Amino acid sequence: MTEFSKRVEQVSISGIREVFEAAGEDAINLGLGQPDFPTPEHARSAAVEAIQAGETDAYTSNKGTESLRESISAKFERDRGLAVDPEDIIATAGGSEALHLVMEAHVDQGDEVIYPDPGFVAYEALTHVAGGEPKPLPLREDLTLDPATVEEHITEDTAAFIVNSPGNPTGAVQSEADMKEFARIAEEHDVLCISDEVYEPFVFDGEHHSPMSFTDSGNVVVVNACSKAYSMTGWRLGWVTGASDRIERMLRAHQYGQACAAAPSQYAAEAALTGPQDHTVEMREAFEERRDLVVEELESMGLDVPTPKGAFYVMPRVPEGWVDEVIDRGVVVVPGEAFGEGGAGHARISYAASMETLEEALEIMREATEAVR
Amino acid sequence: MTEFSKRVEQVSISGIREVFEAAGEDAINLGLGQPDFPTPEHARSAAVEAIQAGETDAYTSNKGTESLRESISAKFERDRGLAVDPEDIIATAGGSEALHLVMEAHVDQGDEVIYPDPGFVAYEALTHVAGGEPKPLPLREDLTLDPATVEEHITEDTAAFIVNSPGNPTGAVQSEADMKEFARIAEEHDVLCISDEVYEPFVFDGEHHSPMSFTDSGNVVVVNACSKAYSMTGWRLGWVTGASDRIERMLRAHQYGQACAAAPSQYAAEAALTGPQDHTVEMREAFEERRDLVVEELESMGLDVPTPKGAFYVMPRVPEGWVDEVIDRGVVVVPGEAFGEGGAGHARISYAASMETLEEALEIMREATEAVR
Repeated sequence: MTEFSKRVEQVSISGIREVFEAAGEDAINLGLGQPDFPTPEHARSAAVEAIQAGETDAYTSNKGTESLRESISAKFERDRGLAVDPEDIIATAGGSEALHLVMEAHVDQGDEVIYPDPGFVAYEALTHVAGGEPKPLPLREDLTLDPATVEEHITEDTAAFIVNSPGNPTGAVQSEADMKEFARIAEEHDVLCISDEVYEPFVFDGEHHSPMSFTDSGNVVVVNACSKAYSMTGWRLGWVTGASDRIERMLRAHQYGQACAAAPSQYAAEAALTGPQDHTVEMREAFEERRDLVVEELESMGLDVPTPKGAFYVMPRVPEGWVDEVIDRGVVVVPGEAFGEGGAGHARISYAASMETLEEALEIMREATEAVR
Repeated sequence: MTEFSKRVEQVSISGIREVFEAAGEDAINLGLGQPDFPTPEHARSAAVEAIQAGETDAYTSNKGTESLRESISAKFERDRGLAVDPEDIIATAGGSEALHLVMEAHVDQGDEVIYPDPGFVAYEALTHVAGGEPKPLPLREDLTLDPATVEEHITEDTAAFIVNSPGNPTGAVQSEADMKEFARIAEEHDVLCISDEVYEPFVFDGEHHSPMSFTDSGNVVVVNACSKAYSMTGWRLGWVTGASDRIERMLRAHQYGQACAAAPSQYAAEAALTGPQDHTVEMREAFEERRDLVVEELESMGLDVPTPKGAFYVMPRVPEGWVDEVIDRGVVVVPGEAFGEGGAGHARISYAASMETLEEALEIMREATEAVR
């Protein structure tokens, strides 16, 4: 009778939290998954004005305000050259809810969901919540996901495969050729490609590409959010885009499980998307400068560091005991295995921290590296 | 391969929307499920201050800020005399997400969920989304749910039963004796009782009681929200409370599918909960005055009107063709069957509208009643 559902019994609370708890109070935290920048002033002001004008008191339409969805559509046009109907967009409680909706609408009990290993922790968890079977796939040496590996693992039971570029926890960026392949695979095998693009603006080498650009099959859905791009993680505002019939199915879950995204956040997001983008450019430049520092320093310690081309993470291969030694010395980094078996032997270091903090932390990592060698 | 999940194929888009679309643009809308009052000024201001101070940019803890959860705990103590540990509370994206979490954590494929018929449309939909089997149960003449009916229908497959008082769409309020019975049933049959209390402050006759007050079994979870109580539907801020192990399981779904409730809304909610409550008292008084008017007028038209003791809905029994006639004449009301088979022969009228508007609408209903008689 009163028992917990199988789905939640298969989900474990994120291992990242345990690491935070293990660290001392004045530890340097390089474990965080959010930018160390404020939300842009014009986004905050737009929310404040809407609140004061009484525009945020009532439900918006389930998909979000028309003007927000138009600004998301305009972003697709501006950044990707894609024409997306505002009716084919649902504003969500961050990228998290967007991913959850895609899974709820497409994954049945026993269906398989393919995703990168190491990969973002929610992929496994939300697959379980939807009753699906997680199929984590190993990555290339440079920590990108090989389309050929995905294609090999597609079976009759595959409901979807997830592409995440730039990637968390890897910082890896998939090439245009890879994205074309993912689009082809989605089309040819009639399988859903979920493209998680929340780190989109943070590409240092090359360019961001979306598999949605390379197929008209309707088999790609894009998940994105203001969370990282505009440093708005607390606002919980993301979106999901896809073919009309997919959006209609996702709306069924969203309508009853959320009603709508929080109205104040919708106004902030609209301003962020339509206003000046220099704040995001500044963040990208800062992340790139830090990336260069961190990679150079880690390599000078003798570590093997797959160069991250985007996001704000680096995932070096580290010797046994390195993570514990670093944490013991007061710098929080996350053990790679928190992101899947394929993460074993790596550490995820977030460089969403000032250059001064990073320099201090790198000095400690150098000592730790020597200690465990 | 790329197909929609069974769960969403079983969910239909709410019939309420169809009614809105059928009505003309300048129709009087008595179909809405939200108060016609602004969010209290002190709640808005608290959000504005937090936004301006940069306190809403980053994720809060998954369960919500400690101070918000303390204010929810204080509300339980103040209003229900219940001691609830702030650790046993998750702040959610409205009551909707709270209901969704309870279902995700407790309902397995094929499990049955019992709820009132007519009942809030999300009960059926979220049962389907969780893979469960909806078991709508008929109500008493006064539109309350008889605990004996619930008890008769509990089987080996029952995962939960939902109690909703004051009720949507009925406005019915369950008695203290009923609530004691629901608590006993949850305990004796070891089955989960989900108590949806989002209309809690709006009781006109008698008092609100929660089944949580009458059992220590840990088999009652309470879902509540700022949405109706403080006219904050757009803010999406609710909560779920229950035994620690239940909260831990719900947190697994919430952590990955939401991360946290929107931070600006958390600050607004805390201010609403801890600030002066006269705004809510004013709403209750207005709703009661309107209830009296609407019931008296509908009865004078010869309709059978189960007296609503709470919320802001009335659900008269109406003759064949009445709803269409009323909508054709420019007043939006919702046909009872939109809330389940048991709603057939009824209409839901929301009196979240001014006395002037209600008087105008009632005049039209009177003409419509004569026309269909």
